[in-house]
Amino acid sequence: MASGEIRVALIGTKFMGKAHSNAWAQVAHFFNRPVKPVMQVVCGRDPAGTQAMADTWGWQETSTDWRETIQRDDIDLVDVCTPNNNHAEISIAALKAGKHVACEKPLAMNTQECDAMTKAAKASKKLNFTWYNYRRVPALALARQLVKEGRIGRVYHVRCIYLQSWIMDPKFPLVWRLQGAVAGSGPHGDLNAHIIDAARFITGEEVSEVSAAFETFIKERPLGAMTGGLSAKGGSKKGKVTVEDAALLIGRLSGGGLCSFEATRFAQGRKNGNGIEINGEKGALRFEFEDMNRLKYYDASRPSYLQGWTDILATEANHPYFGAYWPAGHIIGYEHTFINGAADILEALGKDDWSNLKPDFADSTKTQRVLDAAVKSAKSRSWVKTGC
Amino acid sequence: MASGEIRVALIGTKFMGKAHSNAWAQVAHFFNRPVKPVMQVVCGRDPAGTQAMADTWGWQETSTDWRETIQRDDIDLVDVCTPNNNHAEISIAALKAGKHVACEKPLAMNTQECDAMTKAAKASKKLNFTWYNYRRVPALALARQLVKEGRIGRVYHVRCIYLQSWIMDPKFPLVWRLQGAVAGSGPHGDLNAHIIDAARFITGEEVSEVSAAFETFIKERPLGAMTGGLSAKGGSKKGKVTVEDAALLIGRLSGGGLCSFEATRFAQGRKNGNGIEINGEKGALRFEFEDMNRLKYYDASRPSYLQGWTDILATEANHPYFGAYWPAGHIIGYEHTFINGAADILEALGKDDWSNLKPDFADSTKTQRVLDAAVKSAKSRSWVKTGC
Amino acid sequence: MASGEIRVALIGTKFMGKAHSNAWAQVAHFFNRPVKPVMQVVCGRDPAGTQAMADTWGWQETSTDWRETIQRDDIDLVDVCTPNNNHAEISIAALKAGKHVACEKPLAMNTQECDAMTKAAKASKKLNFTWYNYRRVPALALARQLVKEGRIGRVYHVRCIYLQSWIMDPKFPLVWRLQGAVAGSGPHGDLNAHIIDAARFITGEEVSEVSAAFETFIKERPLGAMTGGLSAKGGSKKGKVTVEDAALLIGRLSGGGLCSFEATRFAQGRKNGNGIEINGEKGALRFEFEDMNRLKYYDASRPSYLQGWTDILATEANHPYFGAYWPAGHIIGYEHTFINGAADILEALGKDDWSNLKPDFADSTKTQRVLDAAVKSAKSRSWVKTGC
Amino acid sequence: MASGEIRVALIGTKFMGKAHSNAWAQVAHFFNRPVKPVMQVVCGRDPAGTQAMADTWGWQETSTDWRETIQRDDIDLVDVCTPNNNHAEISIAALKAGKHVACEKPLAMNTQECDAMTKAAKASKKLNFTWYNYRRVPALALARQLVKEGRIGRVYHVRCIYLQSWIMDPKFPLVWRLQGAVAGSGPHGDLNAHIIDAARFITGEEVSEVSAAFETFIKERPLGAMTGGLSAKGGSKKGKVTVEDAALLIGRLSGGGLCSFEATRFAQGRKNGNGIEINGEKGALRFEFEDMNRLKYYDASRPSYLQGWTDILATEANHPYFGAYWPAGHIIGYEHTFINGAADILEALGKDDWSNLKPDFADSTKTQRVLDAAVKSAKSRSWVKTGC
Repeated sequence: MASGEIRVALIGTKFMGKAHSNAWAQVAHFFNRPVKPVMQVVCGRDPAGTQAMADTWGWQETSTDWRETIQRDDIDLVDVCTPNNNHAEISIAALKAGKHVACEKPLAMNTQECDAMTKAAKASKKLNFTWYNYRRVPALALARQLVKEGRIGRVYHVRCIYLQSWIMDPKFPLVWRLQGAVAGSGPHGDLNAHIIDAARFITGEEVSEVSAAFETFIKERPLGAMTGGLSAKGGSKKGKVTVEDAALLIGRLSGGGLCSFEATRFAQGRKNGNGIEINGEKGALRFEFEDMNRLKYYDASRPSYLQGWTDILATEANHPYFGAYWPAGHIIGYEHTFINGAADILEALGKDDWSNLKPDFADSTKTQRVLDAAVKSAKSRSWVKTGC
Repeated sequence: MASGEIRVALIGTKFMGKAHSNAWAQVAHFFNRPVKPVMQVVCGRDPAGTQAMADTWGWQETSTDWRETIQRDDIDLVDVCTPNNNHAEISIAALKAGKHVACEKPLAMNTQECDAMTKAAKASKKLNFTWYNYRRVPALALARQLVKEGRIGRVYHVRCIYLQSWIMDPKFPLVWRLQGAVAGSGPHGDLNAHIIDAARFITGEEVSEVSAAFETFIKERPLGAMTGGLSAKGGSKKGKVTVEDAALLIGRLSGGGLCSFEATRFAQGRKNGNGIEINGEKGALRFEFEDMNRLKYYDASRPSYLQGWTDILATEANHPYFGAYWPAGHIIGYEHTFINGAADILEALGKDDWSNLKPDFADSTKTQRVLDAAVKSAKSRSWVKTGC
Repeated sequence: MASGEIRVALIGTKFMGKAHSNAWAQVAHFFNRPVKPVMQVVCGRDPAGTQAMADTWGWQETSTDWRETIQRDDIDLVDVCTPNNNHAEISIAALKAGKHVACEKPLAMNTQECDAMTKAAKASKKLNFTWYNYRRVPALALARQLVKEGRIGRVYHVRCIYLQSWIMDPKFPLVWRLQGAVAGSGPHGDLNAHIIDAARFITGEEVSEVSAAFETFIKERPLGAMTGGLSAKGGSKKGKVTVEDAALLIGRLSGGGLCSFEATRFAQGRKNGNGIEINGEKGALRFEFEDMNRLKYYDASRPSYLQGWTDILATEANHPYFGAYWPAGHIIGYEHTFINGAADILEALGKDDWSNLKPDFADSTKTQRVLDAAVKSAKSRSWVKTGC
Repeated sequence: MASGEIRVALIGTKFMGKAHSNAWAQVAHFFNRPVKPVMQVVCGRDPAGTQAMADTWGWQETSTDWRETIQRDDIDLVDVCTPNNNHAEISIAALKAGKHVACEKPLAMNTQECDAMTKAAKASKKLNFTWYNYRRVPALALARQLVKEGRIGRVYHVRCIYLQSWIMDPKFPLVWRLQGAVAGSGPHGDLNAHIIDAARFITGEEVSEVSAAFETFIKERPLGAMTGGLSAKGGSKKGKVTVEDAALLIGRLSGGGLCSFEATRFAQGRKNGNGIEINGEKGALRFEFEDMNRLKYYDASRPSYLQGWTDILATEANHPYFGAYWPAGHIIGYEHTFINGAADILEALGKDDWSNLKPDFADSTKTQRVLDAAVKSAKSRSWVKTGC
């Protein structure tokens, strides 16, 4: 395919379903790609909710049966936004049905599932992509660029946090994200996944071994709002929380540096506190998502009396992705990271070459290996090699 | 009209045309209003550019004749995004044709034009609205709310800046925004207009008198890229710059406080530096657009050892507008201010009552009075009453 | 004098008396100057308070008669920290008595007094110095250095604020700083003096003309704590406030740029909010006193995708003054600006050449001319040339 | 002792010798304590350097023999600022000689030494104090106060960093701080000690177990500047670096929370980056030393739409220690933390009761236990209980 349309089926209608719908709706408004998306069908378990999603976002059809959906001849790309325990099954089935697949993160429940997905992807030769959306924050894409330009040099430290607080109230119910069987893990797979991916992306290095501590602060929560959103309220019966509330890691990088990752939903004062700092031989980088239009860069090659953290407002036309949007200083937000992802998918499809579209399943499997090693470490109370 | 569709004609295809197209395309994705917009026709002088705009954004038709467009029966609302010297003529004609009108800021070239527009609006009884988009930054709407709640008390100081730097290069060409006959003024009408409006909006007070200084630092610029965008390059011939490069005002508020406003396109280091600070008897507020998701609030009623500037991330579901978008901490950007404006227009149309939809033409005429008084003051080198 | 001791008489025992005592006590601890200060005598009107000052700070003697003090043979330098209405009389008398004189700012009550002081200084050939202490914040001295190095280029804008809030409570009493006869003015002479001096110092330009607005928000205040400090409480009788509570200026610089200055004691939320921003052709600078160890520098000569405000922590050994203190990152505070001033006085005395010790009386008279022009402008409601 | 003088002997003349000299010289200028310090004798190995120290700071006598010094009848308090490997020997000897002892941190080379010191302290009944100076940053003392007031509630997370970069240049020589036999450890004992102490101080909890990673990035360094300061340069011969360059810890708190500590001298861009964040049930706190006059406090008991991080400028008269210094907003610096320590020592001596003067040797031994457990963990690659 070098031009024309790509017909998308979206599987999943919650938070990520909304973010992806917006991406498909908006991408052609800002990016002039040879391939244009068609929002063909949205698929969810709840017929009414799925119809509402279609009505709001302009999906042409709805479905409650993903198996049927992925077999349709009029679908080219399956976009998977379901809870984590369905990622592997749906993605593999879609690939086998000859569809391109873009899947939400974390790629799967564990490395085994990821490996199966990667294998299916390789067999199919179809486009396969994992939505680690923060790679496409302009400021973080710029961070990657600066590393590639040699401005950081040998990496000594990578320090990542992803701090939230939305479940701190003990009355917050036992939603699917707090159930191990559905979510796989808590903030570890939800948030550490993001920052491990970001560290790998920016530095180009792998995390080779980790030591981890997990903790569940609130052991039981009200039942009765199993599919509820962030403001859902539970009933008076309680069930056991089967995921961690916080997960801390220290580790080593393939280049010899040290790294740390902390994910929690119990960081009072933090809403979406995704932060990263990289300290290298020649320079350093800092980023906080809540100020996502900024990258802080310390250039140690400058005369020492002029050195300092430079606050780059990554909103110039020559910054990654930003040229598609608005004049300098007119900032963009969270949702644009998904639009940028869709733009890169369309570009790859237009070139009929997705070998450079990252992270693909193989790439994001390495993030999963780190996640799995950390789970093992937390249980064994010892260091665990990731195999990366 | 209590439900159904509102058919929009957009007049203008440049920067604001893009921002408004996005607003009309996105509003129903996030806001569930009884009235939905239909992107009926986009109108511009350049047929090819206008067609490209329609193709990109989904306008159903194009036109190069605004006079014809505003007379069409299948148009309910005319959205005016042309250069400033056409605002009055188009808006008045559209109102006379029985259309609702939403017009970009500054409302017109001067108070006389504004008065004529207000008169036409009153005669028509149609919805009339001025797109001072920063009123709909959630953080600034929250600022207004805090003032209304009595948290600031008597206002002693309002301190506003709007600092840009995009024309500092002397080779930047003489585009329409630098020509007095088309633009009316330079950063005064472009940027001071915004911050005067914001000060009026948040405090609920008027600017009663001003003293101003205007300056044109680069007196001549290359000709040849008259309609060019920000990165346009001119030729070797030069023409006279007939607008100011910077405009500073000091003034008095109707409640007895002091105020200042500074607009410039020569503030090296500043991209879209729209900032406001209000110091009152009981509290204070600070805002900077490049961190638009934050409002800083100083609450002088707290115990003194706990007082400080509280950095409110205005991204909670109970903050103005934000509930329509994403979970807390997942920030929005510049373009959302226009989506919020469109949402408020649709709500007013749905209720068939736009008496509270502000700023209407009458309201934004008061901003124009301040602008005009400042022009007069800069020439007379003395204080000038605004009549507000 | 090329080495040895300099015997100091301090006139004044309040806030500035403390700051200067600390400077003389500390300077030789950090700076190895050939001349060392001897804290010979402190002079105040209140015998008990003056004795307490001597006991605390190690002044060898006390006096309640400044006229006698300045005539003593064992005094080399008179340091004047009295209320503003005594600066001229004491300084001139001391110069005539053959003493070096360091005088607090503002230099005097008006330009006439300043001129008389300058005349006396020239006649005496003695060291004369005005304690505009913020010139010796390392970050601001660095700002001056960057301008001198040509890193800013033509100056388009200077934007200064000095915002406090300590008299906002209407019950705060009518202390001497609120009485025109003693203080000369309110925040205008107290705070605008500082930022006008800073603007002149950093840019090397003069303020050529101004338009000003003054306001007294609280017209009457309790009597009965005339010499009270910041937390003093007045009685039930009230007297008229005879200085302004706030003073705003806009003006023009000798190089063609625009400038603004705002001083107020009614800026809720601001404690000692002394801020300056300079936007030039090639770069820009920002500073806020409450983060006084930092200078923000925007270097427009960098590749555009790397441009941003660089937050220079001015605590390196090669930053002005800082090498005398602590390792990088171990910050200093307000009091060190006075120590740095004392160090420069001692260095000038050691070289027996104070021609480069600035600001001397002639230099700070230019700041006074701007202050006086603003007073005139506020009364005449028109622009006034400063004569600088 | 209830009033009068306390005669101090300072052992050590380098960086900490300077900081302590300043504290003893300044404390009576700002704090009116019944007991005043006399700077009796300074003791160092290098006679010339020690004499210079005495001349600069006003120590009445010098000595090169600490054993003799601590036996002198005219010494009341011994202040130990030597390299870490002498702390225990000198402190114990001084206590046995009947002197009060204030010792720099880390208290000793290991827990065994600390226990011996604590035993000697208990036997002597003399004042014993460890200079963990950051406890006496006003903002951190305020943090402790807020925890005590119940404003944070159950502590879920403590996140500490202490990031420096002064030895990143591979040519930086093998000074004593890089030699295990003298320094005991690298940034672990130097910097982690500080932040572990701060975490214990503010939360009132202990660190119960840890997992650690240590790394030495530059394995060999030039010899020849063994006692050199920060800017020392070594020769061409190299020796082995026997301390770590970076030390990361994750751990658990006695109250069930998670904690992390990171100390490094390889954090490009960071000078003295001592930071702490505490997230609790009811509130949260943040602090960074380079902005040491500020404490950020998140109050989760406020209405949700007003919540945010409040930036408390801890410079009010009712903030800890600050009332001794300057008016609000006139900030203090690094050196004041030692002055505050000296003030607390004098107060305890004045009351003849040092039971509340913390950290005493027993208290800081608990910090040492955490340090030792981390060393053990780094070697064993497993979790280690601290015994606290």
